[in-house]
Amino acid sequence: MFYYIIDLLGTVAFTISGVMVAMNKRLDPFGIFIIGFVTALGGGTIRDVLLGISPVTWLINTTYMFVIMGSVFFGVLFRNQLKYFNKSLLLFDTIGIGLYTVVGLEKGVAAGLHPIMCIALGTVSACFGGVLRDILCNEIPVIFRRKEIYATACILGGVSYFVLTLFPIKGNIIFAIPIVVVIVVRLLAVKYGLKLPSVYKKD
Amino acid sequence: MFYYIIDLLGTVAFTISGVMVAMNKRLDPFGIFIIGFVTALGGGTIRDVLLGISPVTWLINTTYMFVIMGSVFFGVLFRNQLKYFNKSLLLFDTIGIGLYTVVGLEKGVAAGLHPIMCIALGTVSACFGGVLRDILCNEIPVIFRRKEIYATACILGGVSYFVLTLFPIKGNIIFAIPIVVVIVVRLLAVKYGLKLPSVYKKD
Amino acid sequence: MFYYIIDLLGTVAFTISGVMVAMNKRLDPFGIFIIGFVTALGGGTIRDVLLGISPVTWLINTTYMFVIMGSVFFGVLFRNQLKYFNKSLLLFDTIGIGLYTVVGLEKGVAAGLHPIMCIALGTVSACFGGVLRDILCNEIPVIFRRKEIYATACILGGVSYFVLTLFPIKGNIIFAIPIVVVIVVRLLAVKYGLKLPSVYKKD
Repeated sequence: MFYYIIDLLGTVAFTISGVMVAMNKRLDPFGIFIIGFVTALGGGTIRDVLLGISPVTWLINTTYMFVIMGSVFFGVLFRNQLKYFNKSLLLFDTIGIGLYTVVGLEKGVAAGLHPIMCIALGTVSACFGGVLRDILCNEIPVIFRRKEIYATACILGGVSYFVLTLFPIKGNIIFAIPIVVVIVVRLLAVKYGLKLPSVYKKD
Repeated sequence: MFYYIIDLLGTVAFTISGVMVAMNKRLDPFGIFIIGFVTALGGGTIRDVLLGISPVTWLINTTYMFVIMGSVFFGVLFRNQLKYFNKSLLLFDTIGIGLYTVVGLEKGVAAGLHPIMCIALGTVSACFGGVLRDILCNEIPVIFRRKEIYATACILGGVSYFVLTLFPIKGNIIFAIPIVVVIVVRLLAVKYGLKLPSVYKKD
Repeated sequence: MFYYIIDLLGTVAFTISGVMVAMNKRLDPFGIFIIGFVTALGGGTIRDVLLGISPVTWLINTTYMFVIMGSVFFGVLFRNQLKYFNKSLLLFDTIGIGLYTVVGLEKGVAAGLHPIMCIALGTVSACFGGVLRDILCNEIPVIFRRKEIYATACILGGVSYFVLTLFPIKGNIIFAIPIVVVIVVRLLAVKYGLKLPSVYKKD
C-alpha cells in the first residue's frame, strides 16, 4: 500500500513534467494529455513490451489512467502556480524514478534475467517515459544531453540491489535501500550540481 | 466483406496521406513507402503490441502490404492530380478512422478490458499511425497541435458504443453506429471549423 | 560460430556508427551509450516485438551488451582516429546488414510467414536500428532521404533467398548466398555511386 501511494505520486510528478513540456510547445488539449500519459507510463510500457508482459500494465489497472487525467487537469489549471511546487515536483519525480527503477528491476529478476539486464530494465522503466516525451515534442531527449546525474542514479540504485543480495538481508528492505540510493544520489547531484564527465574538449 | 472493403479504402487513404507528407519532405522512394506503410498500419501495430497480439496483423494478412504498395505507386504517380481527390481522400480517411476506432474497440472488448481502455485502444488504432508518420518526418504530431476534432471524434465514437451497450441492441448495428458517430462528428468539425478549446491566453 | 563472430562484428560497426552520430550531436556519455545500443540492437528488437518473441534476444544473451559497452568505450576514446577505420567500418557495417537481413528472414520463415513479410522482417532487422538512432537524434532517418542503395540491398538479398529456395540447394549455403548478395550490391552501390531513381523533378 505504501509503495502503491509512492507509485501514484511518481505518476503525478511524471505527468505534470509532461504537461509542462507540452504546454511550452503550445500543444492542444489532446496533445497535452498524450504527452502527460506517455511521460508517466512510457517507460513501463517499453519494459513490459521488451519482456513480453501483455496486455501492458496500464491497460489492466485503470487507476493510472484516472490519476493521469486528474494530473493533466490540475497541471493545465494551475500552470502559473506550478513554479511554487517545483521542489515538491522534483521530490515526487525523484521518489518516482527510485520506485520505477526498483519495479523494473524486480520484473527482470522475476523473469530470471542477468543482473545487468535487470538494471537496464529498471533504468528504462524510470527514464524512457521522458525519452518518449521529448521525441514526441521533437527534441533530442534531455537525459541524453544534459550530463545530469539522472539515469546514472537509477543505474547506481540497481547496482546497490545486487550488492545487497550478497548479504543475508530479509524482507522488503532489499527493495527499499535501492530506492533510497536512487533518491539520495539524485538529490545530492541536484544540490551540488554534479554532472557526468564531458567527453568533449571545450564543454 | 463490406467492412473489409471499407478497411482497405481507409488503408488507401492513410497511405496516400503518408505519401503526401513524405514527398513534401522530399524523401526517396524507400522513405516514401515506409512513411505510407507506417501511416496506414502504425496505429494498429501499436495496439496489437500493447495487447500482446502477435505476430501483428499485417505480418499474417498480406493484403495490406499489397494495397499499400499499390497506393504508394498511385500516390507518387498522380501526386499532381491528388488535389482533385482531396474530398475523396478526406472521406476515405474519415471512414477509415471510424472503422479503425471500432476495430480497436472490439479488440479491447474481446480482451475483457475496461471501457476507458477500449476507447483508448480505438483511438490509438485510428490516430497513432499519423503520430508515427509525423515523428519519422521530424515534426511534432499534427493531431497534438491543431486543436482539430480528430482524435476527439474517435473518443466520442468509442463513448457512443458503450452508451449503446446499455440498450438491448442486436447484431452488427452496435458497431455500425459508432462508426457513423466518428464520421459525422469529424465531417461536421471540418465543415464548421470546430476546434478544441485553447488552454492558452492568446490563441 | 563463424556467423556469430560476423554478427558481433556487425554489432561493433553499428554501435560505432551510433557513437559517431551521437558525438556529432554532442550528447553526454549516457546518451552516447544509448544511441550506440539502439543503433546496434533496435532493428532486431522491433523485429522480435512484431513477431512476439519475448523477452527480446538481447535481454537473454548478455554478450551483445558487453560488446556494445566495449565498442562505445572504444569509439569515444579513438574518435579522432575513427576516420582511419572508415573502410573497415563500412565493411563491418555491410557484412552486418547482410547477416542481420538473413537473421530476420530466417525468423520470418520459422514463423511460417509469407515471403514478402520475411523480406520485410529482414530489412527491418538490418535497417531500423539506424532509423531509431536518427529519430533519437532528432533527424529524419538518413535511409529515407539519401536515395542510397542500403535498404534496397537488403530487399534484394531477401529476394535472392526465395529465388534460391526454388532450386535443390542443401545446407547453409542458402543463407550464405543472400548475405553475399547484400554485401556485393551495397559495395557496388558505394563504389559506383548508384542511387534510387528520384521521384522529383529537379533533384
